Amino acid sequence: MSFSIPSQQTQIVLRERPKAAIQHTLGANDSTYEKRTIPVPKESELKDGEVLVRVEYVSLDPAMRGWLRDARSYLPPVQIGEVMRAGGVGVVVASKFAGLNKGDQVSGTLGWQQYAQVPGKSVEKRTIREGSNLLDYLGPLGSSGQTAYWGILDVAAIKSGDVVVVTGAAGSVGSIVVQIAKLKGCKVIAVAGADDKCEWLKSSLGADEALNYKSPDFKKTYREMVTKKYGYIDAIFENVGGEILDMSLLCMKPHARIALCGAISDYNNPKPDGLKNYQTIIAMRIKLQGFIVFDYAKRYAEAEEQMSRWMNEGKLARKFHVVGEELDAKAREQGKSLELAPKALVDLFAGKNSGKMVVKVAA
Amino acid sequence: MSFSIPSQQTQIVLRERPKAAIQHTLGANDSTYEKRTIPVPKESELKDGEVLVRVEYVSLDPAMRGWLRDARSYLPPVQIGEVMRAGGVGVVVASKFAGLNKGDQVSGTLGWQQYAQVPGKSVEKRTIREGSNLLDYLGPLGSSGQTAYWGILDVAAIKSGDVVVVTGAAGSVGSIVVQIAKLKGCKVIAVAGADDKCEWLKSSLGADEALNYKSPDFKKTYREMVTKKYGYIDAIFENVGGEILDMSLLCMKPHARIALCGAISDYNNPKPDGLKNYQTIIAMRIKLQGFIVFDYAKRYAEAEEQMSRWMNEGKLARKFHVVGEELDAKAREQGKSLELAPKALVDLFAGKNSGKMVVKVAA
Repeated sequence: MSFSIPSQQTQIVLRERPKAAIQHTLGANDSTYEKRTIPVPKESELKDGEVLVRVEYVSLDPAMRGWLRDARSYLPPVQIGEVMRAGGVGVVVASKFAGLNKGDQVSGTLGWQQYAQVPGKSVEKRTIREGSNLLDYLGPLGSSGQTAYWGILDVAAIKSGDVVVVTGAAGSVGSIVVQIAKLKGCKVIAVAGADDKCEWLKSSLGADEALNYKSPDFKKTYREMVTKKYGYIDAIFENVGGEILDMSLLCMKPHARIALCGAISDYNNPKPDGLKNYQTIIAMRIKLQGFIVFDYAKRYAEAEEQMSRWMNEGKLARKFHVVGEELDAKAREQGKSLELAPKALVDLFAGKNSGKMVVKVAA
Repeated sequence: MSFSIPSQQTQIVLRERPKAAIQHTLGANDSTYEKRTIPVPKESELKDGEVLVRVEYVSLDPAMRGWLRDARSYLPPVQIGEVMRAGGVGVVVASKFAGLNKGDQVSGTLGWQQYAQVPGKSVEKRTIREGSNLLDYLGPLGSSGQTAYWGILDVAAIKSGDVVVVTGAAGSVGSIVVQIAKLKGCKVIAVAGADDKCEWLKSSLGADEALNYKSPDFKKTYREMVTKKYGYIDAIFENVGGEILDMSLLCMKPHARIALCGAISDYNNPKPDGLKNYQTIIAMRIKLQGFIVFDYAKRYAEAEEQMSRWMNEGKLARKFHVVGEELDAKAREQGKSLELAPKALVDLFAGKNSGKMVVKVAA
């Protein structure tokens, strides 16, 4: 591969912290983000140990909402004026780091920008395995996949025969969780926000049931299904939180486990209703455990190995929702697809994606 | 010892399920309980395997509120017209069970009554150890002590140096938890509902701090103490739930553990506010785990052994709040102290006890 590196690049930076929903109109008075055009660093400007990465794709994740909040968390918040933090994959175009050469494919925290000047040790060199590609490192082989793998197998500790509920089941993490739980012999009840997602979950991913939480009789159907038809829940992989989680608390078996991965329904809500049914955590001896994939960093290789094998055996489907794919190469070269990222993030919270949402950055 | 067994006895039975608070006035239109006088079973009326136990003391526990609720739980609800379920200690006065003889001291679910006709295998024969007495089987050696022991050591998994919060710290379970945590080398912040309780927690039980949650500046003081002075919380033994738990969620270290034992602040509340700060369970990878002491039944002997040793070494203080002690023996013989039980249970929810609340039943 050969590239010409342009002199200017586009970055999307944090302009002001959103009070509730993200304001996506770049240039508007209340815009959460703003566009910045700056020179691309020259090879001579790299510090020792740094690399320059041409960003191919960046990730859009629910967790990003948390990174905008100025609160104590597992990572410091993105600062005002800073490039929006995001996972990404790309190609090294210049290197002053011994471990990486020009042309190497990498993944890491690259941010919403076209070219990332980062410490070489902060990114991971990726050798593409049989049956997968670089983009999979933002999907099953990246943090989505790692989150799914460790959350369902270690935190929720599922075993064959378990009745497992997955919320946000058509999302990047949920769709992998559904498949792992099926591979492990569980009965899977998937919850998603659209009929076509439910159809995909059942016909393509093998979920035993898939329910649209936006359907008017969802609560009743869900409660009766998990209690009467399936005899209560052994484990939940929770991406949505809020009302669904609260209702589920009343439908758990003794000693059930909840892997609390996300609470997307409340991320934009300054005053969440909260878990009113928490007392049943006592009576049913429920373990409700939050987790962050980074805590499993030392075991990533283990999951990657297993997930690659499943992918190569055709047992693990994945779907990407690629923002900016419809633009022409020239527009992308001008950073136009990054300008779509803020709106895409808002769409993600509205559940308009099906599968893993990414932005195609490079031409 | 010798006893004359009377022909009649008093029982307190469930009359109607309370909608919110327990209505304690026996005989009133809305009374939760009613008094019943029935013949004491004769020895000849015992079935094979049964014993007749003269009840010495019965226990009053926050968990009793849950047993009145007609909901799926770890035990079936007490039925209308049934003797109120309660732990108790007593003496066998007649036996058709090979494992127990007249005069044996036992503990078990004896109920709010003067004489309990129960299967011999449902009660435990108690040999009193050096440094303890029968009543301790409703305290440190009974389910309060077992709850404290397993909750703090196994569920909350404390280790030396941990910053540990104990709510309901002056209660039957909490007061033991505080002492175990100190014995294990933790820093203990005790939360209770009265200044004299706080004084006792510090001066007699060794808590590093004790805060009265009814004091007007409690929230601010608590938050600053656990975050600034102690550098966030490693583990909570939670008896109270509600607002205090919700606030504590924001003050946890990464990977902190919460042993959810009770939620007394919400037991009488038909519409709890709920845990609004549950999202921090994700960011801080908190484990919030409910537990019920019965799940540790196979390991009771282990805890009993350790607790007895601590008691004999003078390392484990206990305090009983004995209802009906002020009555004369004749009044107790007529079951008058049991008539005080419903009101005492209401007092328990109002935090009027300090230490383990029991009713002295026998003369």
